[in-house]
Amino acid sequence: MTTHNLAPFAGASCIVTGGLGFIGSNLALALAAARARVTVIDALVPAHGGDRRNLERGNLERGNLDREEPSVHVVVANIADRSVVAPLLEGVDYVFAVAGQVSHHESMLDPLGDLDHNTRSQVAFLEILRAVAPDAVVVHTSTRQVYGRPRYLPVDEDHPTFPADANGIDKLAGEQYHLLYSRVHGMRISALRLTNVYGPRQCLAREGLGFLPVFVRRALRGEPITVFGEGEQLRDCVHVDDVVHALALAALSPDAPGEVFNIGHPEYHSLREIAGIVVEAAGQGEVTTIAWPAELVGIDIGSFHTDFSKAKRVLGWEPSIGLAEGMARTIDFYRERPWYLSST
Amino acid sequence: MTTHNLAPFAGASCIVTGGLGFIGSNLALALAAARARVTVIDALVPAHGGDRRNLERGNLERGNLDREEPSVHVVVANIADRSVVAPLLEGVDYVFAVAGQVSHHESMLDPLGDLDHNTRSQVAFLEILRAVAPDAVVVHTSTRQVYGRPRYLPVDEDHPTFPADANGIDKLAGEQYHLLYSRVHGMRISALRLTNVYGPRQCLAREGLGFLPVFVRRALRGEPITVFGEGEQLRDCVHVDDVVHALALAALSPDAPGEVFNIGHPEYHSLREIAGIVVEAAGQGEVTTIAWPAELVGIDIGSFHTDFSKAKRVLGWEPSIGLAEGMARTIDFYRERPWYLSST
Repeated sequence: MTTHNLAPFAGASCIVTGGLGFIGSNLALALAAARARVTVIDALVPAHGGDRRNLERGNLERGNLDREEPSVHVVVANIADRSVVAPLLEGVDYVFAVAGQVSHHESMLDPLGDLDHNTRSQVAFLEILRAVAPDAVVVHTSTRQVYGRPRYLPVDEDHPTFPADANGIDKLAGEQYHLLYSRVHGMRISALRLTNVYGPRQCLAREGLGFLPVFVRRALRGEPITVFGEGEQLRDCVHVDDVVHALALAALSPDAPGEVFNIGHPEYHSLREIAGIVVEAAGQGEVTTIAWPAELVGIDIGSFHTDFSKAKRVLGWEPSIGLAEGMARTIDFYRERPWYLSST
Repeated sequence: MTTHNLAPFAGASCIVTGGLGFIGSNLALALAAARARVTVIDALVPAHGGDRRNLERGNLERGNLDREEPSVHVVVANIADRSVVAPLLEGVDYVFAVAGQVSHHESMLDPLGDLDHNTRSQVAFLEILRAVAPDAVVVHTSTRQVYGRPRYLPVDEDHPTFPADANGIDKLAGEQYHLLYSRVHGMRISALRLTNVYGPRQCLAREGLGFLPVFVRRALRGEPITVFGEGEQLRDCVHVDDVVHALALAALSPDAPGEVFNIGHPEYHSLREIAGIVVEAAGQGEVTTIAWPAELVGIDIGSFHTDFSKAKRVLGWEPSIGLAEGMARTIDFYRERPWYLSST
């Protein structure tokens, strides 16, 4: 549970799209704990990361259980469904547009489905928002994937956007529509380009949701963590509590609208090292290497780490949780909730 | 009619999507004149630029009429319609993916429709192509609009892509999917980012297809050409015959696949000067200024002109037609075919 101060959201009406998923559910709970009125809209698309259990009382953390039950209203619907969504958006203060498909590999198998989730539905949602709640503050979650293979490191927001897979293309388009609506229609919308995120409430059982949940699942099962090739590619990883904090600051900053911010971590490691940190946190498992799968070679981006100095300068944000500490807390969370490890 | 040598296409099977529109019909006729076997796929979307009359015998130019009738097979269908499109693509040698919506203003009024035409249908088409004709050579027409408001002039291909309107966002995504399919699926696909194009067979009667057809229509009618503000924004303009030549060279170059090329002109002028050149070519009309319409201020990109040195270096392409000469020929074409001026 985030310990950041979300007091300014007390009493505010907040929408979290994708709020049954990993980042969305952590955000929804943090806002509810701060006494915001929170409505989650989630389509529970099969093979995405959403799960109703993320918001069930029995799965909350100690910080939540000590208080009265957080009030999160859950609506299962596609964000493009105007008849359902428009009434929910009326009079809303803050919208966190977190819904999206994240699998790179899946996006190559079903580029049209990915486009519909990450671009078309986002545009439909923006059109509803513009009609119903043009004054709401909106924060959209984008991804470091929009940059593609880095031309220099660390990657700042001026780095060219040249996505390496269908998911990067449709997420970039989705982000650009958000910024366009801010620029042209005067809406208060910002976007966060997130690096790899880990922490509680991530779907561990499904493939395609990033390497971190796979590493965590394998370590918790005592299975070897396999990295591709030599595992030399660099990545920075940010704990979901720090992402929740960034989302809150972006919503509260008067300087955020129209802007895009990288959200990353100053610590970066090779994938092999990250696997080692997960094994260390779990106290079991091991790290092995295998050859690159043919279907992933073409969309690999090599090394990446984030220059997030703009977020620090404009939003006053920086991450507070190191990888070893954050991973230890993450492992503890899942050990107490073994259902996250079951296949669905 | 282009006088460039398209002899290498003789006997080749060519598809031109959007082939009833402005650029597509000029390309289809040039290929047919070179004795290619040409099939046009065009959805004839209302308010787009397509018109069956563009390919009718009575509307051809002298160069065509001197030969036997060019053979262009026309299929009216959406490029995403697999049942119609897949059989047409089997065994095809060259695909010119020219179909698209081009209005910036319309794209802001109907962003979902624009996305469907310029991105979703393109992805569906690429999926059909990958299944049916993965070895075809493909050239996609993109637009300078992907760059948005220039950060420096002239704009080269490394300039950041930050589109200023919905049309720019969805065209950029469409282009990126084409390049992705080249990179990841090994298909021979390149993309041309076109600056403003003028010449025969452009729909003059509809709004929203760019400033050049509006200027030409007004001059031909003897009406004043109005430019917004002081009309100081710079633009380069390229004749459609030069664009046809660029499309042909991109299709024939072994170095084109996976690459994107700017297609522009070394001559650039303010919009007021361009209006003056059109008036001069028509021998009638005048240039006046009016205040910027509110709905267009937000999506204006300021001045633009093109660095096309990459196309020159890699494709051996450069434009051969200056604006004054090209505009005079354009005016002559439309004077002989007054139906282009009627509203539809």
